[in-house]
Amino acid sequence: MERNARGHRLIQSAANPVIKRARSLREKKHRKSEGLFLAEGLRILTEAREAGSLPQQLFYAEDRPGHPLAEELITATLAAGGEVVATSEDILSKLSGKDNPQTLIGLYPDRLTPLADLDRHAAPIWLVVQAMRDPGNLGTMLRTGDAVGAGGLILIDDCVDPFSVETVRASMGALFTQQISTARWPDFISWLRSGPGTLVGTSLAPGTVDYREPAYPAPTFILIGNEARGLPDDYEAACDVRVKMPMHGKADSLNAAVAAAVMAYQVLDRQERG
Amino acid sequence: MERNARGHRLIQSAANPVIKRARSLREKKHRKSEGLFLAEGLRILTEAREAGSLPQQLFYAEDRPGHPLAEELITATLAAGGEVVATSEDILSKLSGKDNPQTLIGLYPDRLTPLADLDRHAAPIWLVVQAMRDPGNLGTMLRTGDAVGAGGLILIDDCVDPFSVETVRASMGALFTQQISTARWPDFISWLRSGPGTLVGTSLAPGTVDYREPAYPAPTFILIGNEARGLPDDYEAACDVRVKMPMHGKADSLNAAVAAAVMAYQVLDRQERG
Repeated sequence: MERNARGHRLIQSAANPVIKRARSLREKKHRKSEGLFLAEGLRILTEAREAGSLPQQLFYAEDRPGHPLAEELITATLAAGGEVVATSEDILSKLSGKDNPQTLIGLYPDRLTPLADLDRHAAPIWLVVQAMRDPGNLGTMLRTGDAVGAGGLILIDDCVDPFSVETVRASMGALFTQQISTARWPDFISWLRSGPGTLVGTSLAPGTVDYREPAYPAPTFILIGNEARGLPDDYEAACDVRVKMPMHGKADSLNAAVAAAVMAYQVLDRQERG
Repeated sequence: MERNARGHRLIQSAANPVIKRARSLREKKHRKSEGLFLAEGLRILTEAREAGSLPQQLFYAEDRPGHPLAEELITATLAAGGEVVATSEDILSKLSGKDNPQTLIGLYPDRLTPLADLDRHAAPIWLVVQAMRDPGNLGTMLRTGDAVGAGGLILIDDCVDPFSVETVRASMGALFTQQISTARWPDFISWLRSGPGTLVGTSLAPGTVDYREPAYPAPTFILIGNEARGLPDDYEAACDVRVKMPMHGKADSLNAAVAAAVMAYQVLDRQERG
């Protein structure tokens, strides 16, 4: 095994199996079979470290000057038993799929928590998404969840992979601060009803109240439906509260990540006001 | 000129100058020189029509069954003196840059309003963005603006083009309900100070107040800074109110379109409560 002057493993060929394996994690099927995913960039990897996650493998650009935070990441990764790999900017570019790659890429074990292991009392707000299709929306929701102090994100039905490169990027590292579970709807409902919790759905159906009215006791679960179709009727019916936001425009809709954020800040406000 | 059975101009070659010109509008320089842009899809074109905008040219897929709303668009476009062009799905695909193109694509005159012509009293909320770089964020903000009944969006400094295909798509048609102006910062400030208006900046600087405190009298202008850098210090200093949103997480940041939406709904709430 080739090593650089610092004693780190040095890989200069994109054909190296270590690189090929890391690159394969850009595809969902390989992430799933390996239970690993990629995160990129000094900022996101530092957020991950601060949230207690260190990479199994950390790739850095051999010929780029090291930032002090990058050095801290290298030290911490080695101390935790991970491997540090020095490589070229060109190979990092291949891993990230971007022309101007980040100078650091980490390979992390996926962060799925079984629903049964979620501690609903650990946070006053939880986000629940149904058939969410856009990785940018999902990442943005994770970022919002972190900002409002949510406990995590529960994915119902066929959602986009929360560990895709695009989601991790849009989350700006918040992926590492949020618990993430996936569940089928009946399993989610039976878990939810096994303890305290208010399920809130955004809706335009009859029987909805203005989103500023309910008290939203903790823990409140905010349910957001698919970008194009919204929530299925029976999912709405299962909610404890159905709320609507004012719509003064012609288009009568909000982006899903925006709706989640406006709801989450409203819930936080009501909970803080008590 | 070839015509189909309905009497519409029929174009079956991607080399036709009409197609080449429409396709060129995918690039900013051609949009700018022609003063035209593209919008795609039945839903967005219908929103545009309801907001009073009809395309100069309307392209539809000759061999796809027509939706009643598509027929209405065809009739209204012709009645307003526009041209309707029947073409192939393959050519629509080239125009839209997507494999599964929308069945309708319209070519519209750009919607820039000179700042001096904006009527600030026409709406209680206005969005102002500085150096916004992401077309999805910009489109999402237009959609939010429509939902809260904002009057429009003012773009400061070097922003992404509001008439890009990606922005129009993310706006879901709200682009056509919002007035859009571009301005240099000093010109914006001198226009703003020539009449009533409260300029609100989101900030983490000293002297900020919780975003739920101010009264936000109409018209309120919500200023959102660049995704990565936020607002320049002197722009913040020029704001009448500097507010912060609660941040309970580790990452201490929100997506720009999310921050705009949470602020806009808060302003709307305060204005509605009087």
